[in-house]
Amino acid sequence: MSAVSDLLAFQRETEALAQIMGRLGWDQETMMPRGAADQRGDEMAALEGVLHARRTDPRLGEWLDRAAHESQTQTHTQTMAEAAQLRLIARAYARACRVPVALAARIARVTSLSQGRWAAARKAEDLSGFLPVLAEVIALRREEAQALASGGDAYDAALQGYEPGITGAEIAAVFDRMRPRLVALRAGLRDGPDAPVLHGHFPRAAQLALAHEVAGAFGYDLTRGRIDEAVHPFSSGSHNDVRITTRIDETEPLGCIYSTIHEVGHAGYEQNITQDYGLSVLGQGVSMGVHESQSRIYENQLGRSPAFCHWLYGRMRDHFGPLSVSSPEAFTRAVNRVASGFIRTEADEVHYNLHIMLRFDLERALIGGDLAVCDLEAAWNDRFAADFGVAVDRPSDGVLQDVHWPVGLFGYFPTYSLGNVYAGCLHMALRAAVPGLDDRLAQGDLAPALGWLRDNLQIHGALRDPRDTVEHATGAPVGEAPLLTYLETKYSALYAA
Amino acid sequence: MSAVSDLLAFQRETEALAQIMGRLGWDQETMMPRGAADQRGDEMAALEGVLHARRTDPRLGEWLDRAAHESQTQTHTQTMAEAAQLRLIARAYARACRVPVALAARIARVTSLSQGRWAAARKAEDLSGFLPVLAEVIALRREEAQALASGGDAYDAALQGYEPGITGAEIAAVFDRMRPRLVALRAGLRDGPDAPVLHGHFPRAAQLALAHEVAGAFGYDLTRGRIDEAVHPFSSGSHNDVRITTRIDETEPLGCIYSTIHEVGHAGYEQNITQDYGLSVLGQGVSMGVHESQSRIYENQLGRSPAFCHWLYGRMRDHFGPLSVSSPEAFTRAVNRVASGFIRTEADEVHYNLHIMLRFDLERALIGGDLAVCDLEAAWNDRFAADFGVAVDRPSDGVLQDVHWPVGLFGYFPTYSLGNVYAGCLHMALRAAVPGLDDRLAQGDLAPALGWLRDNLQIHGALRDPRDTVEHATGAPVGEAPLLTYLETKYSALYAA
Repeated sequence: MSAVSDLLAFQRETEALAQIMGRLGWDQETMMPRGAADQRGDEMAALEGVLHARRTDPRLGEWLDRAAHESQTQTHTQTMAEAAQLRLIARAYARACRVPVALAARIARVTSLSQGRWAAARKAEDLSGFLPVLAEVIALRREEAQALASGGDAYDAALQGYEPGITGAEIAAVFDRMRPRLVALRAGLRDGPDAPVLHGHFPRAAQLALAHEVAGAFGYDLTRGRIDEAVHPFSSGSHNDVRITTRIDETEPLGCIYSTIHEVGHAGYEQNITQDYGLSVLGQGVSMGVHESQSRIYENQLGRSPAFCHWLYGRMRDHFGPLSVSSPEAFTRAVNRVASGFIRTEADEVHYNLHIMLRFDLERALIGGDLAVCDLEAAWNDRFAADFGVAVDRPSDGVLQDVHWPVGLFGYFPTYSLGNVYAGCLHMALRAAVPGLDDRLAQGDLAPALGWLRDNLQIHGALRDPRDTVEHATGAPVGEAPLLTYLETKYSALYAA
Repeated sequence: MSAVSDLLAFQRETEALAQIMGRLGWDQETMMPRGAADQRGDEMAALEGVLHARRTDPRLGEWLDRAAHESQTQTHTQTMAEAAQLRLIARAYARACRVPVALAARIARVTSLSQGRWAAARKAEDLSGFLPVLAEVIALRREEAQALASGGDAYDAALQGYEPGITGAEIAAVFDRMRPRLVALRAGLRDGPDAPVLHGHFPRAAQLALAHEVAGAFGYDLTRGRIDEAVHPFSSGSHNDVRITTRIDETEPLGCIYSTIHEVGHAGYEQNITQDYGLSVLGQGVSMGVHESQSRIYENQLGRSPAFCHWLYGRMRDHFGPLSVSSPEAFTRAVNRVASGFIRTEADEVHYNLHIMLRFDLERALIGGDLAVCDLEAAWNDRFAADFGVAVDRPSDGVLQDVHWPVGLFGYFPTYSLGNVYAGCLHMALRAAVPGLDDRLAQGDLAPALGWLRDNLQIHGALRDPRDTVEHATGAPVGEAPLLTYLETKYSALYAA
């Protein structure tokens, strides 16, 4: 046995155990009896302990050294996939070893406690009591990021956990170019009093049936997945067991349909990675940003396109009977309604990235030590008023709305907008590669779009780094211009109609 | 930290990981998409590897030695529960260490292969091609049992994996006393042509609703469990996450109801163990036999009692409308119909133990080397004709009917009948302790029976060895007489009516 084969066999078991952790998370949100919550915490902590021990196992370092030696001495010639796996394993091992065990344990304890305190503060609409907890979470994550950075920029080090290969400065440059054009765009879009709105009663069973139909149209393979209900929709798992959830509100069907399409984007990416990479570090989406690019292009550039909306309008009428909007054009407008809301997760395509930019600037300043936690709420509210033209009315509509910071996720938010930027690039390349795409979308036929995404991006899994993955698919450098052009063109046309 | 506390903390994590394995098994039978089967095999193998490493971890031996020393030198005074945990951990560690790793791996490989070969042979109704595989399974299990026995009786050593503290000779003595009385009893029971039979259409939703109602009546706590459908009903999990499954056949509702009650017996035992023992070796049913005693007393002595059948008859009519049996007495007879079928899992209370005795004698001879695998089918068929008065018509109705031997379970079968014997003892003690039980059962009120079982047996988990557990509850030695008397009395009365 070569060092490479020993290492990859060990890693395969680690990946299998990590899949189990994902399965427990899925079960917790869908099937688990509520009385089992504490026990599940113990179970997941035990498995997390096993995973942590494997990720910092000193044998990893020895195998990696021997593999490098075997490669140099040409006793073993690495394939491209092997080299990529060794690179990713080495990177993860180096990161895992840089964080002291005691610090990792303290972070786990504090962030687990903090989630409940955040929920209580949010319910009470009072940030003050939560500030000391949040300050500790930030201090711990900063300490961790500094350990990871070993002298470099702490926020950049935090980013690598979600989007390897990108820096805060690069993101800031992209966002600085996007922000004025988005603010100008959103300021120019105004709904009249007679803007079309979808309302009525949409029975649960019909929504679930349509969700399954739409998931199928978007290529979701139900022999290797399933759809259940959950409060917050998510996708979970890799390879041949990739499950999604959706949410159902009987007064509002678009949430169910578009959250399903979004999660099918995540799940389809996982399902379409070549079987050769199953249960390896290559057998999963390469980064949060590239993952989000798939869910966004499925949901927005394809699912909210006027052509697809025309097809969906017919399916909606078949499932729900006559609608409160009486033409495919009005339905398209209802689906693509632009409104300046407080809540990121409910934001439309135009406002969404403005939400992210606000969080990015604030969290970068928090981790960098340039913003004190006691000034956070004021900074949030000032920035919101400037970008959205509305004053935040209460903490749950402002700084307390998201769970990310309370559970210690810093460096995660910008990947949502990177996903949109990547989706813009991919969409431009897709349109060039597939002429007549709208004719197909108008028939509910997503095969050409999905085939292009699969063959040019999804199938490769984590073989290349995130940006390379997108650029390999598009043949062009990543940039924000395609997204901005797409948004300006689409919404100017919709709102001029 | 004392050695005891180190050891128990380590064990707690092992128990949590073992619970995860149970959860994966549950998911596989209920929720898992079928395309995920191979991947699930890899996931479970990885977790099994982790568990095996923990069960043979040399630190266990060191902690156990130090704990014994601390106890002798009185630096730490053990509670009864601590002493029981150390005893169980030491026993499991000694067993795990006696089996060579290579042998354990070969057994895992061969038994996993063998299950598919058995299914094919069963479908083809042809034992011959499967015999070499079965011979290898038996040879490997014999080698393992001999390693475990270290000079003692191999079959006795195999038994300890399922029913610690009992020997093959003791079981044989009990069975030898039971067999003639059971053969005589079954020979005397004959259904006339007008014996009541339940037939009709019983909709799935109504069966599930009644299953939930009956599960609730039998004390199943749905805040710490759930009921789903599966091909073969089972109970899974311990402590605060104990799930059951049931099966539904719309032409036959009793299978759903009584398999639900049976699994609630298993699950109720787990749920009622004191919370103090959660995620410890004491926090689970003490043996297969005692587990089965709970499922059997719930299902048979309580659930099939004429008094309870009277109540159930009313609930059946409420859920399904008028029935093909027109009185509670006729319904009771239909529920307790005695028939000489080929299949163990479909057997009535009278025939069931005859099925087990046949398997016990044959498997003991196989592991002991007194029966060659090529003579197995003839031995089975001869014995079946003698005890059941019918000739086996095909292998799937005979030696190929059960999955146990193909997957290498030897020593497991007798625990089913031990469960019946224990249930007989517990039932006698319960009747003595709770006067007027039938009046309560006739109202669907199981609280007095369940309370007695909980307080006298279930709550204690694995604190005492299996036989001690039952004798502690009943205050009398375990024996087959109460079961035989119960069966003779009940069925003579039913069939005389």
